[in-house]
Amino acid sequence: MKTLWLENNQLQLCTDIPIPTPPPGEALIRVLRAGICNTDLELLRGYYPYKGIPGHEFVGIVEKGSPHLLGKRVVGEINAVCGKCRFCLKGESTHCENRTVLGIVNRNGAFAEYLTLPETNLHLVPDNVSTDVATFTEPLAAALEIQQQVKITASEKVLVVGDGKLGQLVAQTLALTGCDLLVIGRHPEKLANLEERGIEIGFSDGIIDRSFDIAVECTGNPEGFALALRALRPRGILVLKSTYSGKLTIDASALVVDEITLIGSRCGPFAPALELLRTQQVNVSPLIQARYPIAEGLTAFSHAKQRGVLKVLLDMIEEG
Amino acid sequence: MKTLWLENNQLQLCTDIPIPTPPPGEALIRVLRAGICNTDLELLRGYYPYKGIPGHEFVGIVEKGSPHLLGKRVVGEINAVCGKCRFCLKGESTHCENRTVLGIVNRNGAFAEYLTLPETNLHLVPDNVSTDVATFTEPLAAALEIQQQVKITASEKVLVVGDGKLGQLVAQTLALTGCDLLVIGRHPEKLANLEERGIEIGFSDGIIDRSFDIAVECTGNPEGFALALRALRPRGILVLKSTYSGKLTIDASALVVDEITLIGSRCGPFAPALELLRTQQVNVSPLIQARYPIAEGLTAFSHAKQRGVLKVLLDMIEEG
Repeated sequence: MKTLWLENNQLQLCTDIPIPTPPPGEALIRVLRAGICNTDLELLRGYYPYKGIPGHEFVGIVEKGSPHLLGKRVVGEINAVCGKCRFCLKGESTHCENRTVLGIVNRNGAFAEYLTLPETNLHLVPDNVSTDVATFTEPLAAALEIQQQVKITASEKVLVVGDGKLGQLVAQTLALTGCDLLVIGRHPEKLANLEERGIEIGFSDGIIDRSFDIAVECTGNPEGFALALRALRPRGILVLKSTYSGKLTIDASALVVDEITLIGSRCGPFAPALELLRTQQVNVSPLIQARYPIAEGLTAFSHAKQRGVLKVLLDMIEEG
Repeated sequence: MKTLWLENNQLQLCTDIPIPTPPPGEALIRVLRAGICNTDLELLRGYYPYKGIPGHEFVGIVEKGSPHLLGKRVVGEINAVCGKCRFCLKGESTHCENRTVLGIVNRNGAFAEYLTLPETNLHLVPDNVSTDVATFTEPLAAALEIQQQVKITASEKVLVVGDGKLGQLVAQTLALTGCDLLVIGRHPEKLANLEERGIEIGFSDGIIDRSFDIAVECTGNPEGFALALRALRPRGILVLKSTYSGKLTIDASALVVDEITLIGSRCGPFAPALELLRTQQVNVSPLIQARYPIAEGLTAFSHAKQRGVLKVLLDMIEEG
């Protein structure tokens, strides 16, 4: 089958990888669409020494699996877990000690015509959610993880730093809480997406006072972190939502003096994400910037890497 | 009066500073004893651009003030607050926007024969608590702040990194929660203090698995921070209890992937600290390593700066 293959921080197009055989409990899924995420770009930069097929945002059709899944459009949670370790047993299975992670840790991913995942990871895509839109389920779930970790209500003043793919989803999900929300970024056209939805926007070089209860850092760069920290009131909460390829240098004394809480945030719940897409409470379509067939996957990555580009999709259906 | 004076990161002994006149609402306190804290050493290294008399851990006698305080032995909370700003109004007065801080921010401190503080900051020292012991009220309160921020019960597995002044107090207060506690450090004789109290100890170069629910970083150095982070389970909590004079470089991706919470922790409640001293539930006497008269304050600081030294006290009573 046709795939992208990552090895030694080099991405290449392969055509000789065999279609995988699903182990017991897993389904074989024909991938329809996959999205390129910043984590994929970080993997290329060496964020984690991964060798294999990358890609973890996808929609596919179950070709081999249990009858209730067969032929259905699905999305899949990316952590394949053991169910037996101390974290699985206490309901924190995204932190399973023995997990593999689709396209990230020891498990071939979605930039391929086929993938396998445990059936328990799969969620049916509602009929009224298009394949393009459903490709955003995974990052939207990640955005919702913030609210699993921090209680956010209408009384909180919340800042989102970054108007990129992740910032857009985080902002839209936070807006639903009714909180006093401001999103700051550098790109007028991206901020306009949010402004159209009634979300207050601003530019990163504007004046930010120390008044926010919560700041969500969605840029993955040290400037974004510093800005988020400066914006917080004492005892504020800074949510780190981006992966960083390098080390981050922080003003630890400021954290101590202002008693700031810093929270790392990763994968989130799929079911509420699909529900938000089904009920059209978030709008992901404006985030789609380009699409390429898998055969042009390297070009797609070059495009996705450019500054300011939002979501680039890969189309797995064979042409011709 | 005799004082130590800090200016341009240089400490000197002064004899020509006049005894302060307490403004309305403040008491004049004759200082009996003061303790040198790591924050004082950091101030010397330029952690914060302070000019004035340093020192914030003290016991003194009220010489001018309200009748219920006059002639009494007191300790004092170090933040002098406005009572009117948004933080004061919501009960977070240690974060008052207009605060001065004894010996740290715009307020002359305790390495002097006299100081002034608002009467509302003062707490009477119980009769059975010696002046030496009461000098530890402020750092003990800071140790108790951890439990104001993080609920710690007998079911938590907690690591304290550092066997210095702060680590010793943090360890003793945490032990009272009944949690599963381990303190690691580099100094056998300091760890022995804790072992005698039934606290489990270990050395920093030992094997630490990713199993702790909570780690408290009390070393103020990057190695201590890295060790605390490595010891935590996913979704664990790292409490930053030390001030750092420089920047701290962290592995932000590890924070995100493991969804770690990092909490800065500063000043804590005096009343429970005094109660712990009154009831002898913590033992601070073994922490006293040396004492000097104020006239030998510079020597006292040189001593306190040496690696591995615990508490150095200054005695303010005029000799001769």
